[in-house]
Amino acid sequence: MAARSVDVPALVAAARAGSPRAVARLISLVEDAHPALREVMAALAPHTGHAHVIGLTGSPGVGKSTSTTTMVGAFRARGKRVGILAVDPSSPFSGGALLGDRVRMQDHVLDPEVYIRSMASRGHLGGLSWTTPQALRVLDAAGCDVILVETVGVGQSEVEVAGLADTTIVLLAPGMGDGIQAAKAGILEIGDLFVVNKADRDGADATVRDLRHMISLGDRTEPGLWRPPVVKTVAARGEGLDDVMEAVDKHVEWLSSSSALRQRRLARAGTEIEAIAMAALRSRIASLRHDESLDRLAADVVDGRSDPYAAADQVVAALT
Amino acid sequence: MAARSVDVPALVAAARAGSPRAVARLISLVEDAHPALREVMAALAPHTGHAHVIGLTGSPGVGKSTSTTTMVGAFRARGKRVGILAVDPSSPFSGGALLGDRVRMQDHVLDPEVYIRSMASRGHLGGLSWTTPQALRVLDAAGCDVILVETVGVGQSEVEVAGLADTTIVLLAPGMGDGIQAAKAGILEIGDLFVVNKADRDGADATVRDLRHMISLGDRTEPGLWRPPVVKTVAARGEGLDDVMEAVDKHVEWLSSSSALRQRRLARAGTEIEAIAMAALRSRIASLRHDESLDRLAADVVDGRSDPYAAADQVVAALT
Repeated sequence: MAARSVDVPALVAAARAGSPRAVARLISLVEDAHPALREVMAALAPHTGHAHVIGLTGSPGVGKSTSTTTMVGAFRARGKRVGILAVDPSSPFSGGALLGDRVRMQDHVLDPEVYIRSMASRGHLGGLSWTTPQALRVLDAAGCDVILVETVGVGQSEVEVAGLADTTIVLLAPGMGDGIQAAKAGILEIGDLFVVNKADRDGADATVRDLRHMISLGDRTEPGLWRPPVVKTVAARGEGLDDVMEAVDKHVEWLSSSSALRQRRLARAGTEIEAIAMAALRSRIASLRHDESLDRLAADVVDGRSDPYAAADQVVAALT
Repeated sequence: MAARSVDVPALVAAARAGSPRAVARLISLVEDAHPALREVMAALAPHTGHAHVIGLTGSPGVGKSTSTTTMVGAFRARGKRVGILAVDPSSPFSGGALLGDRVRMQDHVLDPEVYIRSMASRGHLGGLSWTTPQALRVLDAAGCDVILVETVGVGQSEVEVAGLADTTIVLLAPGMGDGIQAAKAGILEIGDLFVVNKADRDGADATVRDLRHMISLGDRTEPGLWRPPVVKTVAARGEGLDDVMEAVDKHVEWLSSSSALRQRRLARAGTEIEAIAMAALRSRIASLRHDESLDRLAADVVDGRSDPYAAADQVVAALT
């Protein structure tokens, strides 16, 4: 195939020099699983590890976009370069819906120190695919100090976003999810910081109390461990933003002073390596399908001459 | 480890002779991923391929359990041995919830020619795990003529149940899903037969009309291809059951007279082999984690000395 050739060194240099077009092009290469990706990732590697990744998740309607926007403003006021990755785990399409929504984001759209990207992520594996960590590498190498990964909390995506982030913020709204629902959804385990947004509504204090109670029942009360704070905000009016930023700063401090940051990043890299290795092995199996040897094995199983384990042994033997 | 030893030949012989306890024990071995499974599957292989697998899916509340029960009754009236696998893709637990619900199933619980099993299936891969096809092999080798796999339509599970079944029945109810919603959910492509249950409710005819219209827009109108019928039922009163059975019979006939049945089963066996091979490879990667070589690679990536692709190459090389 005549894949459009890519001048990787030039593109990476341009991204590092602050070209939003180069950054956008690199993320498109990630989304397209372009053959040049290997070279891209190798070129980016020495420049990664600087950005602090903040994951932001919550059910639809809790105010994720508004909260993200106010946080971006706060980081910009500190002179930080900010990347925003809006990941929609329920959509097979990129670009459209999420960015369309975020009228408020227009404050930042023209700011050259802010990169905004909306990604679809429903890959073979469901949920956040392994393209998301690669997009994070692009933004990281492009000099972002902070990257906000915003994702709708659906199914497993919250847990996955926590796997990607250094700091995970879980947003809730009064009456939408009390402590028990949070516990059921498994979000108590993943949040480093809980934000009860729309705190001017009835029931906000009850939600905060429930969350604090549920957190106190968890096993994160040992000294030295991080105990997730619960903060109230009214993001649409900027209320509580200072408290959120203070809590994030404290978490960053805790991460750096403990071994937690390195542990999280090692786990993240391990998962990413594993996913790429598995994808490589899967494509080798697909080539067996192509040359019909998998079909022959399948016929043996259907006709009762073999069983799936014996056939799988042959597949593994053919690969290794 | 001192795994409880299993007398596989005796167990398989007992299952083939019609012992429900032996069947239950074999399916438990599947659920536990017991080391004896390989031997079990090898012993079952020559006895598989007889059962016709019917997948039954639909949103919560459309009447899946009731419909399954009436169909079981119809197959029993024909003297068929029937297996029922109720798979709950949303639950990590086996046995409890689904069977607890199905009070109506008690008509069949004491029937020695009916095997009922409730399985959790949320595995590493999400949705229906690869334990389901193995449980199907057990029921098949145990002499079931028909196996009904019932699963709640959540996320990808409908598509997955279609991959397992010879005949896929999609249940809808009036007002719960019209044709357009069905198209969005991707169920138009997977249904071999659509059943609009609770057809005594308002809107049933409109739902039927919508579905027929959407089906007519599909690409399954060529001669020789199967065009999915749409049938109305009121399962709770047994209405429409004859029509469902007639449609199933016609589909079975079409599958056998075309190459479709073999194609579906080859595809199913191929997927199963692939899943087992991938699991074997994944566990080899896990052993790399255990001996710390994956940790070293992850550290290289975190420190920018390597990138995930180069590290993944080393993982693949270590396996092969």
